[in-house]
Amino acid sequence: MIGSRRRRLGAWGFEGVDLVAPQPLLSFLNERLGASAGLPRADPARFAIAPPRSLPGALGEGSREPLDRLAHARGQGLTDLVRLRTGTVTALPDAVLRPSSEDEVESILRACAAAGIRVIPWGGGTSVTGGVNVLPGDEPLVSLDLERLSRLVDLDERSGLATFQAGTFGPEIEAVLGARGFTLGHFPQSFELSTLGGWIATRASGQESLGYGGIERLVAGLDVRAPAGKLSIPAFPASAAGPDLRQLVLGSEGRLGVVTRATVRVRRRPPPLVVKGTLLPSWEEGIEGAREIVQRRAPLDLLRLSDAFETEVSLLLGLSRDRALDRIVQRLLSLRGVTEKSCMMLCGATGDGLEESAAILKAHGGVRVGASPGRKWLADRFRHPYLRDSLLDSGYATDTLETAAPWSRLSDLSERVRRAFPEPIVVLCHVSHPYEDGASLYFTFFFPCPRDPEEATARWAHLKRAATAAILAGGGTLSHHHGVGIWHAPWYESEVGRDGLRLVENAAAAFDPTGILNPHVLLDPTDRLEV
Amino acid sequence: MIGSRRRRLGAWGFEGVDLVAPQPLLSFLNERLGASAGLPRADPARFAIAPPRSLPGALGEGSREPLDRLAHARGQGLTDLVRLRTGTVTALPDAVLRPSSEDEVESILRACAAAGIRVIPWGGGTSVTGGVNVLPGDEPLVSLDLERLSRLVDLDERSGLATFQAGTFGPEIEAVLGARGFTLGHFPQSFELSTLGGWIATRASGQESLGYGGIERLVAGLDVRAPAGKLSIPAFPASAAGPDLRQLVLGSEGRLGVVTRATVRVRRRPPPLVVKGTLLPSWEEGIEGAREIVQRRAPLDLLRLSDAFETEVSLLLGLSRDRALDRIVQRLLSLRGVTEKSCMMLCGATGDGLEESAAILKAHGGVRVGASPGRKWLADRFRHPYLRDSLLDSGYATDTLETAAPWSRLSDLSERVRRAFPEPIVVLCHVSHPYEDGASLYFTFFFPCPRDPEEATARWAHLKRAATAAILAGGGTLSHHHGVGIWHAPWYESEVGRDGLRLVENAAAAFDPTGILNPHVLLDPTDRLEV
Repeated sequence: MIGSRRRRLGAWGFEGVDLVAPQPLLSFLNERLGASAGLPRADPARFAIAPPRSLPGALGEGSREPLDRLAHARGQGLTDLVRLRTGTVTALPDAVLRPSSEDEVESILRACAAAGIRVIPWGGGTSVTGGVNVLPGDEPLVSLDLERLSRLVDLDERSGLATFQAGTFGPEIEAVLGARGFTLGHFPQSFELSTLGGWIATRASGQESLGYGGIERLVAGLDVRAPAGKLSIPAFPASAAGPDLRQLVLGSEGRLGVVTRATVRVRRRPPPLVVKGTLLPSWEEGIEGAREIVQRRAPLDLLRLSDAFETEVSLLLGLSRDRALDRIVQRLLSLRGVTEKSCMMLCGATGDGLEESAAILKAHGGVRVGASPGRKWLADRFRHPYLRDSLLDSGYATDTLETAAPWSRLSDLSERVRRAFPEPIVVLCHVSHPYEDGASLYFTFFFPCPRDPEEATARWAHLKRAATAAILAGGGTLSHHHGVGIWHAPWYESEVGRDGLRLVENAAAAFDPTGILNPHVLLDPTDRLEV
Repeated sequence: MIGSRRRRLGAWGFEGVDLVAPQPLLSFLNERLGASAGLPRADPARFAIAPPRSLPGALGEGSREPLDRLAHARGQGLTDLVRLRTGTVTALPDAVLRPSSEDEVESILRACAAAGIRVIPWGGGTSVTGGVNVLPGDEPLVSLDLERLSRLVDLDERSGLATFQAGTFGPEIEAVLGARGFTLGHFPQSFELSTLGGWIATRASGQESLGYGGIERLVAGLDVRAPAGKLSIPAFPASAAGPDLRQLVLGSEGRLGVVTRATVRVRRRPPPLVVKGTLLPSWEEGIEGAREIVQRRAPLDLLRLSDAFETEVSLLLGLSRDRALDRIVQRLLSLRGVTEKSCMMLCGATGDGLEESAAILKAHGGVRVGASPGRKWLADRFRHPYLRDSLLDSGYATDTLETAAPWSRLSDLSERVRRAFPEPIVVLCHVSHPYEDGASLYFTFFFPCPRDPEEATARWAHLKRAATAAILAGGGTLSHHHGVGIWHAPWYESEVGRDGLRLVENAAAAFDPTGILNPHVLLDPTDRLEV
């Protein structure tokens, strides 16, 4: 539940909301990938749920409800959905604890450490890296759901600093700030379902990170509670008093402790975001245009460049709505030199912020296609993951991978990752989250989902391993904003080195000496892609 | 030596360069503080230098020259100057080692760890927090001077990423980049004398940090060598693969290891910086104007707001040059409502970047005073520390303190720190390094310097303790850009907490288990202000 809205089991988002795959997209996938049989939706009746193991009284009651435990067993990765749909999730937390104060978080953690009970901190549960997944094992385990820690603690309007408890969800943060004339500006795709604490634990980035920065820039101070440690980092605009300990917590994925509150940098609410589309003549020209926009510091809040294939699929998604208009637009575009190699760039800004980028893109052969693609993207910006469920209903599995790299490597890197997928897998790519020195690449791939969950998981794991290897070989980071979780952990050492890993292990050991906190994410290199 | 220029002993900068205190300033100090007798300049003949302790052959030759050892005994803090002038520095490194490769750094560190020899990494030696000071002790100690590691390793022009070895000095970095059309934009006051590695170790900020960011934003990747560890963090524009380990190295002051190279974000060289002055009717109005400029994101690279007292002293510094013009200007200003409470703000930008801030300041009662104060500031921006030596020649000690805090606390904080100094100490203050959520405060204080070095040191330590306590009580950070060093270390725990300190200790212990690296900075809480 978030407010009065009920979350769906084994699918994205809320009951009653859907984004149904349009027929042109299904025809396209059918043509490319062949026909596939749909997977049934998740049904609680399909699960044989073992009774919870007993827990010490010091932990308080918590919830032992089978459905509540099931809802806290897995995140939102593709194979989480497959296993929840097929009733093959067997490892559940023994209880869901919902502390009502930050001190209660601390006492729960101490009691769990004393009793050897493992703890998985739970924000919105939207991890796509296995970051909140319960693994089969003998130790008792609880899910620590922070949903009751969800209030504004303080707003310093002059400094633009807002302190929230960590369990506050995105829409609540914006509603509370909006009522006072402010915005945080952090809008990840999971915005409606994810929390401040989850963003911090995973170093999340919002879609408007170009204008506002990722969560690592937005967090000015934070509090952490751990079984054997406690941090309360004050909100300074900057400090040279030793290393920046906030940056050790950001991305620690629960291994170091539980973030209970954070002070974030907020801004006066600007006029609404305007997003407009431009077609660039090629992927390479688009990347150069994006680079120039960012390096010249044109005042954009958002920039996304789709490759030609993703541009085509986006058009398919739109086609079902107004075919006649679309045919006219396409004819006009072809008259202006737009081809099947054209790549759509969306630029978003407030006020007259789009002018400078438009001029830059014109010099790169850009053809403006007006506000309609941007309006459509804005309308669906938090709904796109629902499409994944609809496609799975039709038998097509979809997953995403993302990375970031310097500008000089992006084109080669995108090509390497595309080639890592065997034919006829459909792979789309876009550039987003651009920085002066580089950008992230985001890949979406589609394959026919085997009906058998083990087969489906093995197929996905095979593709994921190949694509991740290509990302690292191409000089990209293991993740720009999804995090490491359980599934990327086998590659974490190759990114930070043996001694980098050791630094994080040491920090975790200082705060959680018995290793009860989310023990398989980030630092456990076991390959669990097929679990 | 930096290039062909010879550094002065016990004073700032290079032989042959000076900034002599103008008579109006001396008269002003004389009137406020009373007459004082000047301290003699440093004279190598005044020192009784003990022969170096023997070191294992594995360390290589190094330099055992008495003057070289003396030049590596102390940084540039006020009492360093006093002790060097009075010949009361007794603890010297036993050798100065100048490795010629990054691997040699590593082998030296391993050999030192094996033999129990302490190591103080040395960049430009400009620390004002005791960060490179040798303390009296029984263990042999070497200074590890990185001046031979000073080349451009790689420049990725498309991504704007330049990799330099860590011993490269500021002017060399800008010269090499400038020849290729780029700039790093990092201009701390110590720019001519400090190195990339030193900036990283101390989390330095340049005067144009508003436009470029501090070193913590500029560093994209780095390499560290340590007695029992090694890091090679690649240059990604951003990453969610675990905590940001760069930010654990930035500010580690040599405790974690020696930074041997770093990849920094560079930009196409913009047109020259233009700096213009505006007089604001009061300190509070000035702070509000600065806040509005930054929160509205006016495109400035630099902003400094002097309090009324600093404004007056700046005018005294200028008076000696063109008194007639100054009198005319003053008369004109008084006609426009400028009073003795007026505060000078300097705004710097390239191109037409000053327009927006000028409009904002006008609404805050600002009176533009043209380009002359800005030109003067630009001309002297790296020479101001020479003035300190000239004042000491006349018997007046000068030192600085700095902090940062949210906007809502700045006015109160500045008042607390001013009140922490007893009459008739002269205290000037300015706001610089502004951020959306706050800014740094920089204090300069003057007092008559006792001729006896112990008395001078005790007097300074007394003032420093009182001012630091006021900074912390007022909600400021222990340091915005000078770092912790030896002198601020007693207060470090009160900033990060016991467990924050423990995290940094653990990281240091992982890379330097025998504790040979710069062992008294940052983590050793002993009060050594009088050493």
